[in-house]
Amino acid sequence: MSESRFFEPPSGMTIGEIVALTGAQAKPGTDLSRHVTDIAPPDRAEAGDLTFVESGKFLDALKSTRAAACLIGERFEFDAPDNLVVLRSRQPQADFTAVARKMYANALRPVSLFGITGIAPSAVIHPSARIDKAATVDPGAVVGPNAEVGSGTVIGATAVIGPAVRIGRDCSIGAGCIITHSEIGDRVIVHPGCRIGQDGFGFVPDRKGHVKIPQIGAVIIHDDVEIGVGTAIDRGAMRDTVIGEGTKIDNMVHIAHNVVIGSHCLIAGQSGLSGGVTIEDFVMFGGQVGVAPQLTVGKGARLAARAGVITDIPAGQDTGGHPAIPQRRWLRQQIALEKLVTRDK
Amino acid sequence: MSESRFFEPPSGMTIGEIVALTGAQAKPGTDLSRHVTDIAPPDRAEAGDLTFVESGKFLDALKSTRAAACLIGERFEFDAPDNLVVLRSRQPQADFTAVARKMYANALRPVSLFGITGIAPSAVIHPSARIDKAATVDPGAVVGPNAEVGSGTVIGATAVIGPAVRIGRDCSIGAGCIITHSEIGDRVIVHPGCRIGQDGFGFVPDRKGHVKIPQIGAVIIHDDVEIGVGTAIDRGAMRDTVIGEGTKIDNMVHIAHNVVIGSHCLIAGQSGLSGGVTIEDFVMFGGQVGVAPQLTVGKGARLAARAGVITDIPAGQDTGGHPAIPQRRWLRQQIALEKLVTRDK
Amino acid sequence: MSESRFFEPPSGMTIGEIVALTGAQAKPGTDLSRHVTDIAPPDRAEAGDLTFVESGKFLDALKSTRAAACLIGERFEFDAPDNLVVLRSRQPQADFTAVARKMYANALRPVSLFGITGIAPSAVIHPSARIDKAATVDPGAVVGPNAEVGSGTVIGATAVIGPAVRIGRDCSIGAGCIITHSEIGDRVIVHPGCRIGQDGFGFVPDRKGHVKIPQIGAVIIHDDVEIGVGTAIDRGAMRDTVIGEGTKIDNMVHIAHNVVIGSHCLIAGQSGLSGGVTIEDFVMFGGQVGVAPQLTVGKGARLAARAGVITDIPAGQDTGGHPAIPQRRWLRQQIALEKLVTRDK
Repeated sequence: MSESRFFEPPSGMTIGEIVALTGAQAKPGTDLSRHVTDIAPPDRAEAGDLTFVESGKFLDALKSTRAAACLIGERFEFDAPDNLVVLRSRQPQADFTAVARKMYANALRPVSLFGITGIAPSAVIHPSARIDKAATVDPGAVVGPNAEVGSGTVIGATAVIGPAVRIGRDCSIGAGCIITHSEIGDRVIVHPGCRIGQDGFGFVPDRKGHVKIPQIGAVIIHDDVEIGVGTAIDRGAMRDTVIGEGTKIDNMVHIAHNVVIGSHCLIAGQSGLSGGVTIEDFVMFGGQVGVAPQLTVGKGARLAARAGVITDIPAGQDTGGHPAIPQRRWLRQQIALEKLVTRDK
Repeated sequence: MSESRFFEPPSGMTIGEIVALTGAQAKPGTDLSRHVTDIAPPDRAEAGDLTFVESGKFLDALKSTRAAACLIGERFEFDAPDNLVVLRSRQPQADFTAVARKMYANALRPVSLFGITGIAPSAVIHPSARIDKAATVDPGAVVGPNAEVGSGTVIGATAVIGPAVRIGRDCSIGAGCIITHSEIGDRVIVHPGCRIGQDGFGFVPDRKGHVKIPQIGAVIIHDDVEIGVGTAIDRGAMRDTVIGEGTKIDNMVHIAHNVVIGSHCLIAGQSGLSGGVTIEDFVMFGGQVGVAPQLTVGKGARLAARAGVITDIPAGQDTGGHPAIPQRRWLRQQIALEKLVTRDK
Repeated sequence: MSESRFFEPPSGMTIGEIVALTGAQAKPGTDLSRHVTDIAPPDRAEAGDLTFVESGKFLDALKSTRAAACLIGERFEFDAPDNLVVLRSRQPQADFTAVARKMYANALRPVSLFGITGIAPSAVIHPSARIDKAATVDPGAVVGPNAEVGSGTVIGATAVIGPAVRIGRDCSIGAGCIITHSEIGDRVIVHPGCRIGQDGFGFVPDRKGHVKIPQIGAVIIHDDVEIGVGTAIDRGAMRDTVIGEGTKIDNMVHIAHNVVIGSHCLIAGQSGLSGGVTIEDFVMFGGQVGVAPQLTVGKGARLAARAGVITDIPAGQDTGGHPAIPQRRWLRQQIALEKLVTRDK
């Protein structure tokens, strides 16, 4: 890559180290001591970079790449230029990612935006809060009474941590986050501007004025969760809202009260989960999905972007459309509808 | 409920006090002096708790509940275990909510996240701002010139109140809110991270560069409004954007310039109201609804989740789909479309 | 307009000055020295105001307007009351906007919410940051190491500017914005609560736990861009996310990693652009549009509100529906579907 204002240049790795890390295969005679300086996609690579090719999409770029070495699937090997060090891989993107994680270890989770460790003088910490000595609190952050922040965790600038909130070890809480009524595990990344733990939207409708239902549950976020900017997670009404281990949530997702999300789900941007929804493990959401109240989405189901879910979804089902139905069925509906227009002409 | 880190345990009520508060009926011979300690749904209730059953959904939980007493509709009474104190109610959820509001009075609106009253030393208050002596300003908040904050109101940590903004009595302005060009009534709850009063999206399109139209209106928010996290309300262009009394708005709703919303509407999460839209009183929105510019949605209409409104909607109409049409008509369209696919096979 | 708490009353202009500014034509004998005090729509105008009529929608208001003068299309002139000074215009709204921009020059971009110039004492500026002497930093803002802020730029209250971020001249960065890993041009307006430059949503899915891909690109925002509240722009994975010159983006838009947007686009609220999407110049988005990953939307295309784009869109095409197709075709589909229901009865 070209030099970045924002990341330290990596110290690089040898071909031998890359082979050892990834299990990729170098051709006999490859100089394993050769040094690779950085990583880049094939079209942006400069001399000394490692790149990768996983699909045919980058074949043209491959032919003219300036990269020094390439993690590549067997079927594309013969398209590589002669001077490129070819590293045969059964999973080039995953192997490339392993190298990227090694070279850019500092980019794996957000760090202090002020370049500090410890508590910034301008942070406002309640005397009863317990901040681990190895935690960092950036300028302007506010930590309330009896809150707990674990070792290695970074609380971003101007973030607000409410009373009795517990945050585990090695977390990154982004700048400007507002977190109340929550217990957060270890290695959780919350990107800037999330609001977690506020009242759910609960009212008894009434013609004289809707009556607010007190929201007395909490939010529980398990280990290794990652949450994108501006996402909202309401606390439960009389239960807890729960985000399972390893689940990754994109930007501006709305998670209402009493939602329970399993482990290792992927939820893309601007999706909305209504009150009381259950999402089982390994479910994948495209962007802008909506799920109506109290429904269950079964284990491993995949919801296409923009799916509008108004019934329970069985485990493993690919689902799309609004109302959401099996994805192939939805596609056939669209074809039928188009035929109808043609016929009507 | 199990003990919470986040809420004071309630002091409880007697059966007699519950009967007096709700009008529910105890069986003859019930010990009205018996003390109920907390509230919970049937499946989570512990010894001493009050619970409620409004629908058949919780019948199984009812049969094995550990609760001490239950607000319950007449038709479910015989499913109650013998040792449960049965309180017959025509509206169990509403009655239960009345008890919840009494027991958890502190949860009815957000309070200081720093456990303070008055103005935190780290808050930055312009000398010309007028903050009532009985208002609270949390750490890191910023209040601009000539702003006014009424008695009993809480301004959350790091919230920013712009010049000349007026906020009434007993309001809660959430942490991290940015409010400018606005007049806000009494008992208004604005949850964290809302932005209210910024420029609307107004441009004269031009091939040489779109020309910004100055936005010189304001935002008017009437009494008893509640607004969810991350919601945006733009100020008017040359009129005011208005939110009517008692209207409740969920998270991440987008309200453009010149929108006028009536009283006692309910607007669910991620809905978007385009410029100049008029929403009459008592309209209900599901989640992710969109309304195109300048349209009117009539009194008491209900917009199903994901409705895409591109025409005026008559008063009282249940509406769904995109383009939005009467909800039952939309459902029939979906059935017809599915038949078409089956037929085509 | 009625007097505003939020804007200084304008000093007004003469009819002659308005004619000179806009090229509108006054009737022979019009008193060009007459003073117009303010601007307003026809129905809200008071004595002394300038108004405009561009379409038939405001004809009734025109007949009873109290305005002193009116920019108006030729075909509506005869509907104007006798005492109204008529200024014939071929583009009344654009001409009116020119006057509005002159009278309310202070409303063209957000200014300090604390009424200051220079750096507020409560702002936290890293010693290595370079803030131009003619820049303003509002209370509670945080500016990190090696960040650069140009002349005339305003950094809003509690905004956070990360390490090495570059912001040009005469920009407005709204209160509560969090900006990292970004280079921003001149005259850019970022409204409150935007998050720009955070990690994109990139994982290698894995049954043992999804593996985070380091995001080592940046965000590049060119001159004269405007961005609405709460919008998210993720930095690139190994490229840059780019927003082209003069593009205007509304509230709560989600722009994923590696998106490249051309010049002079208009993107309405709550739209979402998936990773790697390319938007060419002069594209217009309605609200709540979604574009699937890696697609291209051609120059000058217009995407109707709620369009769900799952294929490349040719230049200039009006597009709507989900899956998005030519807008007229989508409308015909809707008609055909409705006929089908009628037929089925």
